[in-house]
Amino acid sequence: FRTLSDRIAQMYRKLYKMGHSDPRKVLFAMKVGLSLALVSLAIYIQDHSPFNELTRYSIWAILTVVVVFEFSVGATLAKGFNRALGTISAAGLALGIAELSLFAGSYNELVITVNLFIAGFLITYVKQYPAMKPYEYGFRVFLLTFCIVLISGRRTSEFFFTAASRLVFIALGGGISLVVNILVCPIWSGEDLHKLVVKNFNGVAKSLEGCVNGYLQCFEYERIPSKILTYQASDDPLYSGYRSAVQSSSQEESLLEFALWEPPHGPYKTFKYPWRNYVQLSGALRHCALMVMAMHGCILSEIQAAPEKRQVFREELRKVGIEGTKVLNLLGSKVQKMEKLSRRSILFEVHGAAKQLQIKIDQQSFLLVNSKSWAAAKHPYELEQTENSMQDNINMPPPAQSEVRDSSKDSYIRKWSSVDNVSKMESWSFSPLDADASMKVMDEENSKVYEIASSLSLATFASLLIEFVARLQNLVDEFEELSEKANFRDSSD
Amino acid sequence: FRTLSDRIAQMYRKLYKMGHSDPRKVLFAMKVGLSLALVSLAIYIQDHSPFNELTRYSIWAILTVVVVFEFSVGATLAKGFNRALGTISAAGLALGIAELSLFAGSYNELVITVNLFIAGFLITYVKQYPAMKPYEYGFRVFLLTFCIVLISGRRTSEFFFTAASRLVFIALGGGISLVVNILVCPIWSGEDLHKLVVKNFNGVAKSLEGCVNGYLQCFEYERIPSKILTYQASDDPLYSGYRSAVQSSSQEESLLEFALWEPPHGPYKTFKYPWRNYVQLSGALRHCALMVMAMHGCILSEIQAAPEKRQVFREELRKVGIEGTKVLNLLGSKVQKMEKLSRRSILFEVHGAAKQLQIKIDQQSFLLVNSKSWAAAKHPYELEQTENSMQDNINMPPPAQSEVRDSSKDSYIRKWSSVDNVSKMESWSFSPLDADASMKVMDEENSKVYEIASSLSLATFASLLIEFVARLQNLVDEFEELSEKANFRDSSD
Repeated sequence: FRTLSDRIAQMYRKLYKMGHSDPRKVLFAMKVGLSLALVSLAIYIQDHSPFNELTRYSIWAILTVVVVFEFSVGATLAKGFNRALGTISAAGLALGIAELSLFAGSYNELVITVNLFIAGFLITYVKQYPAMKPYEYGFRVFLLTFCIVLISGRRTSEFFFTAASRLVFIALGGGISLVVNILVCPIWSGEDLHKLVVKNFNGVAKSLEGCVNGYLQCFEYERIPSKILTYQASDDPLYSGYRSAVQSSSQEESLLEFALWEPPHGPYKTFKYPWRNYVQLSGALRHCALMVMAMHGCILSEIQAAPEKRQVFREELRKVGIEGTKVLNLLGSKVQKMEKLSRRSILFEVHGAAKQLQIKIDQQSFLLVNSKSWAAAKHPYELEQTENSMQDNINMPPPAQSEVRDSSKDSYIRKWSSVDNVSKMESWSFSPLDADASMKVMDEENSKVYEIASSLSLATFASLLIEFVARLQNLVDEFEELSEKANFRDSSD
Repeated sequence: FRTLSDRIAQMYRKLYKMGHSDPRKVLFAMKVGLSLALVSLAIYIQDHSPFNELTRYSIWAILTVVVVFEFSVGATLAKGFNRALGTISAAGLALGIAELSLFAGSYNELVITVNLFIAGFLITYVKQYPAMKPYEYGFRVFLLTFCIVLISGRRTSEFFFTAASRLVFIALGGGISLVVNILVCPIWSGEDLHKLVVKNFNGVAKSLEGCVNGYLQCFEYERIPSKILTYQASDDPLYSGYRSAVQSSSQEESLLEFALWEPPHGPYKTFKYPWRNYVQLSGALRHCALMVMAMHGCILSEIQAAPEKRQVFREELRKVGIEGTKVLNLLGSKVQKMEKLSRRSILFEVHGAAKQLQIKIDQQSFLLVNSKSWAAAKHPYELEQTENSMQDNINMPPPAQSEVRDSSKDSYIRKWSSVDNVSKMESWSFSPLDADASMKVMDEENSKVYEIASSLSLATFASLLIEFVARLQNLVDEFEELSEKANFRDSSD
């Protein structure tokens, strides 16, 4: 008993929290309650009027409210339209067929049963066609009405009366639902779509900032959460931002479907408001987010670049990260405030920062590869290079041996290899006559491979960041198309 | 009129094609028709029996069939359960409240209206709680039944009769739906989930193969399809494979929800069959697919590596691509055939190929960076390097000038820059006194930046491919967990 009351208390707290974080959920629930109470009153009044013959069909009003009343105005309109169209067309068709079936005389029942089969088959088949998906509910209502009119009609032959009374009560229920839904604190899908796009911008910006900073601070996962490894939702701060932006596409599609039903309201003043462009903008953002995703992959990777090398590019990477985040945040706030861009060159700083990063890479590119091994490589310039690199060894302050030790120390190899540093250092002095010489050759090869891979990881991160910057242009283009079509106001600053 | 008949003919062809490509859709539609015909017969029989007093409630049987009959067994069971539970509990509660409301005397109507409001509010509020989502339909039915019993009961005070007759007909409709759905060619969600996972494996394998081959053949988009830029579905062969694998997560979730309802059947012999592991395996595949996605990004990128450089790594990249594709295809077919892996070392070849690629990169890493510019860089070894690189210029067969021309020729710069080769070549001989000298310096800087970025692009591609290989281990681990839990049979080979 104790645990039961505990669980109820816990449940209550959770529900309270939900209402506190999104008061619209409370509002929606109250609106449903209000509609039901109003319908109940209407039925009561009708019950005490001269037309109370109809009362046996009054449950259809209740049924309509429960079924049609949805969270947002758009969804309610879409469902109401589907329901009305399905009911009217089905009733008409069923009346026709029922009249005809009377000619069949004693085969009447058979005709009706065959018609039910055919209707069930056709409707169910057609509604599975992908383009028909928005009207799925309409088809269902059509089938329902069709069956009910045919069946309940055949006893009394009062087809018309059945259908008409149903229509009256459905109109009553639907009317009350619509009035309450639209007039009492309406909840708009379009507004939700707008907010979702803004939220995606902020999420990707947060992920980008977190990835660049995390990479520079050599942030490492002790153990990668299995939720990330199987691409499930997780509240990891670097991960959740881009994941929700990438995963929100189906949510956007359904919000779009409802938003298209909504009349002009609030700041969305025009008919045929370009809701599709919001979804396209979000798609372009997703295209950028894929690069952030790949950058996060560099942090998750088992092979990591040395912290010392990351320090060399620290300023440039940080600058690109900051400027990229700024662009995303700026675009996000412009979408939120529905303002046009004040100048064409919103990408000027981030392009500049990306260029600086590239120049730095250009200058320091020897850090990104293992120049030591060039001497051993079989490329066309072999002879000349060998000569040069030998001279390198003499001239350069850190001699070959120390450089090798250096990179073995700071390249992280987390799994995928059983090589430890000791055996690696040993292998530098192995003799070919040694018993496990081949083993050591193997080991040496392995560790060399990780060395180069670990440096390349830095190049990859930088390159992905640059590609992210390149993709921003597409995002800005989509934003400008949206801001034109949706007639955003000119920027105040 | 002509166009109308054309459109009908076109619609017919489309519908025929849909049925041809997935005959189960035809089957489903026929099963719905059959159930409706059976219910109609049952009502007809009951109509001519002594109990025909109940007949006015017979539409509930039809309603239940239309509403409960879903595509798969699991979905039908889930809906049927929700409907039964919702109806029974609501009827019980409503009966109790109605009895109590009789004590209220003349305030009877008021009590009922207030109760409707409270029920509407509470049910609607609770069903919005995320954990309650699978039971959304149950809540809806509860509310519906509750309202109907309360309202239709108050006129006759025959609450019990109303509720009981509804139950009888709902049981009739639900029973016929279940029998037809399970016994006549059942369609299982679990099987669909299984097939979806296999399809995802094949899709990612196809994308991987396509990306590696496309990259080596220097495949380039004339103009990147805007659907890719906004991450919408497109039938681009490189893109569709990984996209559908990444986007299928919500589909998997809903199939999983239904599969958990299904009894053991066909090859899925145990109770508590580990359907969740299929979803996890698919998640791990998605984690790999993100890397394929990033590799595709290299093909889409505006900055491309020179074909000549790609040729150098051709064999190694191709080998890793082939071996990686093999692993995905093998795992896919093992999942399909429900066989365990025959040996632990399924990753042996692909790891070997990845290692070869890394060794090659190690040897040829000078191709990935612009070693020319080291001389000009301001790094600690500046002086020594300058000396060396001067010697380089003398010793190396292709002199500095020609190398610059070379790389300017084969690095593709598609947008993002207005630099053309002519102005670039000119800039090599600019004089500081020239009027637009600074402009030219700018240009030169730009083109240098693209040079290095274009080479880095190759390093990025290779690095992403290697990270893809590293992630395969996680995929194999998930597969082995699944094959243990689901008791896959030992491999025949």
